[in-house]
Amino acid sequence: MQEHFDALETRIPDLREAALMAALPAQIAHAKAHAPFFSRIFASVEPPAINSRAALAALPVTRKSELHEFQAALRPFGGLNATAPGALARILMSPGPIYDPEGRRADYWQSARGLFAAGFRAGDVVQNCFSYHLTPAGSMFETGLHALGCAVIPAGVGQTEMQVQVMRDLAVSGYVGTPSFLKIILEKAEELNQPVITLKRAQVSGEAFYPAQRDALKARGIAAFQAYGTADLGMIAHESEAREGLIVNENIILEIVRPGTGNPVPDGEVGEVLVTVLSADYPLVRFATGDLSAVLPGRSACGRTNIRIKGWLGRADQTTKVRGLFVHPHQVAAALARAPGISKVRAVVDNPDGQDRLRLLCEAGAQDDQLITLVESALRDITKLRAEASFVAIGSLPNDGKVIEDLRKLD
Amino acid sequence: MQEHFDALETRIPDLREAALMAALPAQIAHAKAHAPFFSRIFASVEPPAINSRAALAALPVTRKSELHEFQAALRPFGGLNATAPGALARILMSPGPIYDPEGRRADYWQSARGLFAAGFRAGDVVQNCFSYHLTPAGSMFETGLHALGCAVIPAGVGQTEMQVQVMRDLAVSGYVGTPSFLKIILEKAEELNQPVITLKRAQVSGEAFYPAQRDALKARGIAAFQAYGTADLGMIAHESEAREGLIVNENIILEIVRPGTGNPVPDGEVGEVLVTVLSADYPLVRFATGDLSAVLPGRSACGRTNIRIKGWLGRADQTTKVRGLFVHPHQVAAALARAPGISKVRAVVDNPDGQDRLRLLCEAGAQDDQLITLVESALRDITKLRAEASFVAIGSLPNDGKVIEDLRKLD
Repeated sequence: MQEHFDALETRIPDLREAALMAALPAQIAHAKAHAPFFSRIFASVEPPAINSRAALAALPVTRKSELHEFQAALRPFGGLNATAPGALARILMSPGPIYDPEGRRADYWQSARGLFAAGFRAGDVVQNCFSYHLTPAGSMFETGLHALGCAVIPAGVGQTEMQVQVMRDLAVSGYVGTPSFLKIILEKAEELNQPVITLKRAQVSGEAFYPAQRDALKARGIAAFQAYGTADLGMIAHESEAREGLIVNENIILEIVRPGTGNPVPDGEVGEVLVTVLSADYPLVRFATGDLSAVLPGRSACGRTNIRIKGWLGRADQTTKVRGLFVHPHQVAAALARAPGISKVRAVVDNPDGQDRLRLLCEAGAQDDQLITLVESALRDITKLRAEASFVAIGSLPNDGKVIEDLRKLD
Repeated sequence: MQEHFDALETRIPDLREAALMAALPAQIAHAKAHAPFFSRIFASVEPPAINSRAALAALPVTRKSELHEFQAALRPFGGLNATAPGALARILMSPGPIYDPEGRRADYWQSARGLFAAGFRAGDVVQNCFSYHLTPAGSMFETGLHALGCAVIPAGVGQTEMQVQVMRDLAVSGYVGTPSFLKIILEKAEELNQPVITLKRAQVSGEAFYPAQRDALKARGIAAFQAYGTADLGMIAHESEAREGLIVNENIILEIVRPGTGNPVPDGEVGEVLVTVLSADYPLVRFATGDLSAVLPGRSACGRTNIRIKGWLGRADQTTKVRGLFVHPHQVAAALARAPGISKVRAVVDNPDGQDRLRLLCEAGAQDDQLITLVESALRDITKLRAEASFVAIGSLPNDGKVIEDLRKLD
């Protein structure tokens, strides 16, 4: 029998979808009423009308890549927060710098569900090897562990010998941190001839986690599971014992969109992860993470019924410079929009003769040469750059979320 | 009008004393029933009888200096804990190593009261520059700040430029950390020509804090107050705006004893700080901190009615080696106990001819030479060391908590 965190995660999918869509109008109204940034960008939005994925998809996207700029203009949170700084539990800092609010409700980052799926239970003694200093990772997992009833050792990163000693002295049963640091600790334990025998489970995050790493840990008796989140949104998705992709968290609405746009791609296609989170404190709506992923078809064998995504598939921001000028994915998308009939386009940059060349590879149902002229001139209008557009066979562009591909050899 | 944290701190002193003594039997019973270490050392103790300071003073002392050994014999807490490790909120680590439990109740370390006395209030945005990693200091203050309703930036130590940036970007109103690191941050801010203007208050701890430092901060508009605590007991005492000594925390029973013994000294005399804490999780009884302090006469002008102690006056552990043999303060105290009539003794070690010499300077009401013989032979029985005892005038031994003074020149 499978154990589950609560009844939400095994709901009939239609019930979840109905509950999320039912919660959306109040969430939009809350953001619009209490977060000045959203008051502005939703000035003409009627919250009651935002009660479907289609209506949501028409709302503007807020990009993580722009947060630094928004925050610099209005400290500390660019007006995206609905809770005043002094009424938060913690304020953290991510590279950028970007400041991240942590509200006062228990399990603010919603990490408890993923930790439960990884086998963490009340009474576990857990070594948390994410940093607690300024960066949110330590708190993101500690708050979830506390919600589960675990005891936490705030261990941070580094001091490997001491980590081994603590793990042994305190009979630690669970690890939270990067997979690479877990490997370093276990190798140090072997080198010191001080085996770690009590460790049974791990939640790893923050970097890629390959099947070979998972199997090596399993051979030591440690069941390790991935989780994926961001400092803005909290935990977005996590593995379960079914080991098929990452199951999306509850209380969030996830979309996969064409990079540079807010347009959802068909299920299975790689695109940018965009999340709307039902948060009172930091009510992010259509927040573009900059991460690429894709929806996996079907449902997990573990009984959790939410959609699943593939792991992290790269960065969505493919902005590059061609002949000294920036090209952004949203510019390529805008050029595509001016050439109806072209279904998909990929900008490819190379330098065959030592000179930058920009090509637009286009998929279209009907390969009409007028479309080529149209898309080339649209791109020139938008970017000031000349490009060579050409047709490719429908379905021949790779499903990797890339809108701009840079093939230049730089040496 | 003075503001106070609650009505407890302004109680009539007799009411506080009565409440503490009334709580003591149940606390002793709790420790004896749930903490195996105390079950053992209190085997013959009848908890209902421990309802006065005199009865408490007859109980055995548990020394911080022995914790490492107790814990090594029985992981993780030497059986001094009444709550199982997995039922704690956090487990921390102090030098030794010594593991420190943190229970799940709000403000476990009882730091909120001292922070309030330092001016911290709900809504303050506070930069906590104690480390959160393994060491308890970060959590000791964060939990109190959360109890007060402050937002905390878990900043840790180091990265000084980033600390300046955070302090400015987040309009930080309060600092918690060592006084020396606050100085480093403020000097860096000046060096960068990025003044910190929002900072109004600080709680400093972990090292000496001199009036000149306090005045320098005041000149910048920052009111800084000391607090004193340990990783085992939580916060023991704190300053208030009256600036006269440190006011003892509520819910703890503080004794000042002759170092090496469990015998309370008269008020005003320097001795070792020994604390009994009314804690469910870690019910330390007569816990000898190894720190020297003394009770200040009278009461604070700020309206808080608890007794006050001087700040930290040094380390109580004066163990030394004479002619290759250890001499411990408790051995000197034991020799004193065998010579009734001698009221105070100080062992002085020097090496006038390049040879270790041990003298016992004795205060006595009646300078009977038999007492000299008695104390010399008692010390020889206990330590195997020959000593030269002599009388000094009553009141001539300095009030500095020293039982053993080492005057040897080692170069």
